[in-house]
Order: sequence, then structure tokens, then C-alpha cells
Amino acid sequence: MGATVKASPANFAAENGENGAGKVAVLNLAQGDPTMFGAYWEKMSEKGTIAFTGAQSMSYYSNTKSICWFLEPELEKEIRRLHGVVGNAVEEEHYVVVGTGSSQLIQAALYALSPPDADLPVNVVCAAPYYSSYPEVADIVRSRSYKWGGDARKYDRDEPYIELVTTPNNPDGAIREPVVNKPQGTVIYDLAYYWPNYTAISSAADHDLMLFTFSKCTGHAGSRIGWALVRDKEVAKKMIKYMEVSTIGVSKDSQLRAAKILGVVSDSCCSHGAEEGFEDEDEDDEEEDFFSFSRNILRERWQRLSQLVKAGNLFTLQKYPTQYCHFAKDMTDTLPAFAWIRMTSNEGGMDCAELLKEQRILARSGTRFGVDNMFARVSMVSTDEEFNTFLQRLAIIQGTSPIYI
Amino acid sequence: MGATVKASPANFAAENGENGAGKVAVLNLAQGDPTMFGAYWEKMSEKGTIAFTGAQSMSYYSNTKSICWFLEPELEKEIRRLHGVVGNAVEEEHYVVVGTGSSQLIQAALYALSPPDADLPVNVVCAAPYYSSYPEVADIVRSRSYKWGGDARKYDRDEPYIELVTTPNNPDGAIREPVVNKPQGTVIYDLAYYWPNYTAISSAADHDLMLFTFSKCTGHAGSRIGWALVRDKEVAKKMIKYMEVSTIGVSKDSQLRAAKILGVVSDSCCSHGAEEGFEDEDEDDEEEDFFSFSRNILRERWQRLSQLVKAGNLFTLQKYPTQYCHFAKDMTDTLPAFAWIRMTSNEGGMDCAELLKEQRILARSGTRFGVDNMFARVSMVSTDEEFNTFLQRLAIIQGTSPIYI
Repeated sequence: MGATVKASPANFAAENGENGAGKVAVLNLAQGDPTMFGAYWEKMSEKGTIAFTGAQSMSYYSNTKSICWFLEPELEKEIRRLHGVVGNAVEEEHYVVVGTGSSQLIQAALYALSPPDADLPVNVVCAAPYYSSYPEVADIVRSRSYKWGGDARKYDRDEPYIELVTTPNNPDGAIREPVVNKPQGTVIYDLAYYWPNYTAISSAADHDLMLFTFSKCTGHAGSRIGWALVRDKEVAKKMIKYMEVSTIGVSKDSQLRAAKILGVVSDSCCSHGAEEGFEDEDEDDEEEDFFSFSRNILRERWQRLSQLVKAGNLFTLQKYPTQYCHFAKDMTDTLPAFAWIRMTSNEGGMDCAELLKEQRILARSGTRFGVDNMFARVSMVSTDEEFNTFLQRLAIIQGTSPIYI
Repeated sequence: MGATVKASPANFAAENGENGAGKVAVLNLAQGDPTMFGAYWEKMSEKGTIAFTGAQSMSYYSNTKSICWFLEPELEKEIRRLHGVVGNAVEEEHYVVVGTGSSQLIQAALYALSPPDADLPVNVVCAAPYYSSYPEVADIVRSRSYKWGGDARKYDRDEPYIELVTTPNNPDGAIREPVVNKPQGTVIYDLAYYWPNYTAISSAADHDLMLFTFSKCTGHAGSRIGWALVRDKEVAKKMIKYMEVSTIGVSKDSQLRAAKILGVVSDSCCSHGAEEGFEDEDEDDEEEDFFSFSRNILRERWQRLSQLVKAGNLFTLQKYPTQYCHFAKDMTDTLPAFAWIRMTSNEGGMDCAELLKEQRILARSGTRFGVDNMFARVSMVSTDEEFNTFLQRLAIIQGTSPIYI
């Protein structure tokens, strides 16, 4: 079975030839490729279908009346609607800026928030463990305006800084607040995982600059759509300027597809009465809403993984709280998109990702997230087949009975 | 009629409120929004249609066997096929790297070609008049690796440099070669307009790094798809790395749509026997090929504009050669996507773009292209309605009879 699992590049770079004849295929769980959600979209394939004729969406422009001239009005509408339905963010007083995934919007935000003529680059910090791409995103262009400044908990300068607050956090799923809290700082909230499939919606986030991504919300990573909710008009305009110079806007095809898909998600929630005052007139109301469907799969996966890890003594998992979710109107578990696995001991000098790699499980080492190599991050949002293979291989590493799988 | 013309932002930034009640609408010809090509795609709307089901293209990955893991194999195939059909570029020994438009690929190329740890940024130069976005693209992130170095004809340092060669050139349609020609330089060929709708295909371009864009080839600017043909594997890998950090790849939806559209273009050419050895079995062979259709519109527009300008004495246009085109297998005119208009006199201190603006024609001033303000660039690839309005307003400025329109 393992040999049929898709081999994928580590750190997104190609690992050609990795799966030679006779070798067990590498199981790439190093990225959070959200293919798990495909099951829902297979079920809803027709409702989620969109077609483009040859002559559609040819112009650079989407909306000349908006400061974000490349934002499709339909996408803006569905983004605002979904935040309203889910209740995870206040959007009424924010501008929507669309990006080619949220990575590009982080760069746009760094551009917008750093002083334009600074002699020394502003430090960009995030509390460890931090999302492994932040250092690269901050440093790739060797900007004189901003640079990666490392772990926010160690930042002690009295200078301007930009703090990235990822909540729930990638890699460890923790709910976070800013840690530096100095007057010269600005904060970018990366809320990629603040959706009810992963965590309880405890309140509507209401920050100056919040980032979201289509990839982690619905699983459509291939469309490369992200959005920022930005309170200040001048900051929004600078971000738009960055997007304009960087890529002259964002794929309209993907924006329109995202609008369609987000609309299906909102509809699926509303047909279950989650939207206040909603009248259920949908004949097809036996369909599960997207977030419940996704939670159910993730909950089962987390239960199986926890049970397996407990049966051995090699690894431990993070503990997560059960919290009241205003969307679900119930107490809900925290079900992160990644397992943040820690070795109970590093005797023999082996690190966690290396140990997993012995059974051809590709995980991302803790060192990439600014912590030690006893940790590794493993995707929980792969396909069923990949997840099953993961548990089988983990059981082999642990020497535990397959009964726990 | 003028009042119905679409108002669009200058320099892509919104100009809200520009068209107040009672005002004649601004005619934005400052960008090269290629809406002219819509006429062809309306005609071919069905053949150019593509649909996406809800579950399609969800993964980040397109091809784990390729060094460009985010490049859709179907797009690569159609890009290579179209270059073969048109004969405008040698692609057999080049890697294809896809980008979010060619702007992003310019940045990827600057990243790939500049020394990674240089103390001083490498100069990025281009002979004036140069594409007005190059300075911004080179300088927006204030990189320590590269910076805008201005007019290539004035570059006289014995240091590494990167020269951008745009041929045919934007804004003036000229066929170009590198001008610096020093041993420490590398060259990026921007071949956005090297298609038979604009110019004769005199030979297959065969350079180390060539950029193309879907926007200018077929008119689908809203899809934000560009591609690079890169000879050196290490350069290609660095560009891919840039794309990975910058946007984690490129919209799959737009890549697949581009593949579809490029396929229709190749088919339209092949059904007219342009591909060697092609057997014409298409029942529908009365359809014009894309490039002939586009050339016919552009030729008529250029004839009308030339006639009008000649009837006045305020402006002059560039003169272009008629050359043998290996694609058309005939002598063909040069029909640039922009008119590069020069005032015959600047008495009174008025500049060209300002003069056009008096009749609410938005053009881009020569100063943006590194030359003086007696020049202005005007899009020739707008809709028919916009082009007609342009001629009407130009006739008013010139004080020439409408007979020339």
C-alpha cells in the first residue's frame, strides 16, 4: 500500500528520483497540502463547479471603483459573507486586499508597514515555534526595509519592529497573542487556521491587519488565493501598490473560483441555520456543512493518532483545550492541521524528523521552526490513504501493535 | 458616446470620483489592457471554455517529477507547442518556469542572476525608452542584491550588471539587441511582444533567459500567467525557489485556462497549415487564425491613426519596417501594441501626455520611460469603442476634420 502513496518534494523543491524501483515511496507530510478536504468537494463537485468562456475576465481590472482595483467584487462579497457566517473576524470596517496566497500578502504587509527610507531594516519577529516560511519570506529579497529578526520572545530592542502573530499557531496549534508589546511595534495577525474546522471560534478577531488564505479554509491550495482585512486605508493602499508592482494583481480565474467555493461553504452553513435569522428553505438540507464535515474527519484522525502515540513511549503530542465555539454553539475540540510531535528522549542523538524519515515519513524538523530537533511537524490534512500509511509507519517506528491503528 | 467609455485607474491605481456627473469619462489608454483581443475570444468562446469542478486542482503540486513542481504539465505542453507553431523561440533546450504574469518572473530572474551575498546591489539597466515598470520592479523591495541602474546606454561601469532587453520594445515597438555588451553582464530578454500579431517573426529567439506573457500573446491579462524559457538549470532552480517563497507557485486554475486558450491559438494556426506537415482535417477551417485576426484589427487601427496624425501637424509617430515573417511566410508590417506619440513642438511648455489629457485621454508620459515629455505612450489594444473615441478626441486636439477618422 505504501508504494502507491504520492511522492512529493520536500520543502516544495523537487526530489526527483527519490522513489527508485523497489523503494517504498516517500510519504510527504512535510507540507500542509490540504488534500483531505477533497472528500467534501468531491461530494459537492457540481455545486462547486465554475466555467470560464474564452472571452471572460480578460482585462487587468476587476473593479475600478475600489481602491483594490484587481479584487473581484464577487470574491469580496463572499469573503465578507463567510466571515459574517462564521463569526471569526470583524470585517465591516476593514478593506479587503486579495493576494496570490497569503505569502504574497505577508510581503505586501512588510512593505506597507516598514518605513520607506529607513537606513536599517526593521526586524520582523515571531515567537518560536514560528511558521518555517517566515524567515525566508522576510529575507529572500535582502530588503533594506525589513529583515527576519528571529524569536519574538528574545526581541528586546527599543526600535520599530513587526511582529507576526499566527493564531492558531503553525506548527503547534496554540492560540496566541503578541509577545513583544512595545510601543514602536506593529502586528500582522496570520489567521490562516482560525476557522471552525481547526479550532473553536471564541470571538470575532478585530485587529488592524489580519491575513487569511483560501488554502487552509477550504483546501483549495492550488488556486493561490489569500486575503487581508486591513483597517487603515493608507496601509491597504501600500499593500495594493506592492501587489500591483509584484504581480499586477491576482488571477481573476482563481478569484472567481474562490468566490464560488466560499459561497458553497457559506450556503452549507446557512442551510443548517448557523446564520442568524436564516430560514431553511433548502430542499437538500441533509448535506453536512463544510466545517462539520471537516471537523469529523480531523477529530477521528486526532483520536487515532493520540491513541497510537500513547501506546508507545517514543513520542508525545501537544495537549489542546476544549473551548466554547460561537460558530458551533457548543464546546469543541482543538484539531490542528498539523501534529507537533515531540520525542520523549533524544538519546543516541537522533532527531525526530530523522527518526520518522527512517520509515520514509517526510516531516519538517523543529529546527526549521526555531526550536530544537526533538520536535517535528507532520501534516494532518493529507488524503485518507496517506494518513493511514502515516499511522502504519509510525506504529512500526514505535514497535506498537497495529491494533492501535 | 465618450461618456460611456470605461473609466480606469491611471498607473493601475484607482482614480475614484474622476468621472463625476456631467463630466466626459476619462479614456484610459495609459495601460496596455489588451481588451481588443476579446473580439476573437467572443467568436471562439465555446472552444475556449474550461470548467473546474469543486474538487479539481486542490493540491499545491502540479508535477512532482519536474524541477518546476508548480507548473501544470498541460500548460508546459501548450507553451512548447505554440512556440513550435509560431517559430518565435527555441524551447527544446530550455526549462519552462511559470509565473504570476511576467512581472513576477522578472523579479525571479533578478533574484536568480544577482550574486546572493553581494555587498553592493547589481545594477539593472535597460536602454531608454524602457518599460516604465522596470524601475519600480527593481526597486520596490529595496534589495541589497539588485537595484535599478537606469538607461543602459549610459552604463559604463566595469561591474556585474543585468540588462533587460525588451524586443519588440515597450513603449516604442523597436527591435532591440543588448547595448552594454560587457563581459560581466547577464541579459534578460523580455519577449512579451514577440508574437506575429505585433511584429514579423524574423527568427526563433534563442537566448539564455526569455520571458513571455499570456496577457500580450492572447489578451488574457486577468489570468496573470507568464512564463520564462531558461537554458541553465541552476538559474531555473533559483527562479523556482523565488516563486516558491514569493507565492508558493502559480494559480493552477489560470494555468489550466491558459493551456486551453494557447491550445486554441495553436489549433487555429494549424488548421491553416502553418504547422509543417499538418493535414487539414478540421471541418471548421473557415475560422481565421488568432494572429491573422488580431493583425487585421491592429493594421486597420494603425492605418487610421497614421492618417489622422498626418492630417495634423501636432504629432508624429514612429516609422516601422516591413519585414519577412517566417510565421506568415510573407512580408508583414510592424504593428505595435502601443503608439509612441511625439509632439512636433513643445512650445508653450506643454507636454504630450498633458495635451492628450485635456481631451481626457489618459496616456503615459515619456518621462516614465526615461525620455522627455514630448513623448507619450497610448494603448492600441483597447476595445473598438475606446479606440474610436481616442481618434475622435485626438482629431479635436489636432483641430483636424473628422473625415480622417
